[in-house]
Amino acid sequence: MTDDGLRLIAAALAVGIGAVGPGVGIGVIFSGALQAMGRNPEAEGTLRTYMFLGFALVEALFIFALVIALLIAFRIV
Amino acid sequence: MTDDGLRLIAAALAVGIGAVGPGVGIGVIFSGALQAMGRNPEAEGTLRTYMFLGFALVEALFIFALVIALLIAFRIV
Amino acid sequence: MTDDGLRLIAAALAVGIGAVGPGVGIGVIFSGALQAMGRNPEAEGTLRTYMFLGFALVEALFIFALVIALLIAFRIV
Amino acid sequence: MTDDGLRLIAAALAVGIGAVGPGVGIGVIFSGALQAMGRNPEAEGTLRTYMFLGFALVEALFIFALVIALLIAFRIV
Amino acid sequence: MTDDGLRLIAAALAVGIGAVGPGVGIGVIFSGALQAMGRNPEAEGTLRTYMFLGFALVEALFIFALVIALLIAFRIV
Repeated sequence: MTDDGLRLIAAALAVGIGAVGPGVGIGVIFSGALQAMGRNPEAEGTLRTYMFLGFALVEALFIFALVIALLIAFRIV
Repeated sequence: MTDDGLRLIAAALAVGIGAVGPGVGIGVIFSGALQAMGRNPEAEGTLRTYMFLGFALVEALFIFALVIALLIAFRIV
Repeated sequence: MTDDGLRLIAAALAVGIGAVGPGVGIGVIFSGALQAMGRNPEAEGTLRTYMFLGFALVEALFIFALVIALLIAFRIV
Repeated sequence: MTDDGLRLIAAALAVGIGAVGPGVGIGVIFSGALQAMGRNPEAEGTLRTYMFLGFALVEALFIFALVIALLIAFRIV
Repeated sequence: MTDDGLRLIAAALAVGIGAVGPGVGIGVIFSGALQAMGRNPEAEGTLRTYMFLGFALVEALFIFALVIALLIAFRIV
């Protein structure tokens, strides 16, 4: 059991746990957008704008975790 | 206890924990789409488009975790 | 198995677990904003202000966790 | 594997797990405020007061966890 | 790896995990109060009373975890 084994565990934990929050969060954003579109279809353009904005901001959290995971997996850190 | 044992644990953690968030998130998206369609059946076409879009974006989070898990399991990383 | 291995685990845990709460929280904020805009499109300006305010305050929590993770990963702490 | 490695793990866990609850909680508070403002825009002043009050009280939980994490990371405890 | 290292882990886990539940719970309380105030602004006084009562009762859970964490961190237990 050397550091290389722990390196694999660390990369797996970073990308695995890092997907939990954004996975739920992006789902909640799309769910809210779908319900708002069902109630008020005329507002589709405005809703779409904020829906993609929210998606991008939450996805960024996952990207940070993914970058850390790749840094660990490919022995850069 | 060698690194090969830790490798198995790492692959299991990446794919297991990585499925938690997207599993909940995709469920929330379909739930919101179903409720919106039940309230406003005429909007089914628009809602279906955004429903599949949201599904694909959340599924992508799981795909990243799965790729990391496969890289670990098949000794590429 | 030395401290360097634990260092990688620590960085992965900080950025991974630190993304869970803000990931969900930012998603909930945008979902609430989208639903409020769908119900009352005239209030878009006010809602947008508080939406970004809430985003920034929740994002700050993740930034703290990210800073700790980078301090650990690059051997400053 | 010495105590210094465990010290890094402890700091990461304190700031990481400590951000989960407040991250979700602050998001829920802002979501509720946004929905209430969308339904009743005249009550914005009152809602804003209680929104910031709730934010401060939940943020305090994270601050405690951050202080413990910094005490651990910089070898004060 | 001595007991002093495990002591740090224990303090971090107590304050970190102890903040998860109250962080979410206090957020849900304030969210419910804000939505009720938006729907019925005349009931602000009554709602405020129960809102603070609920906050205090949930905060007490975190205080217990914080006290245990400090007892562990400063070597009293």
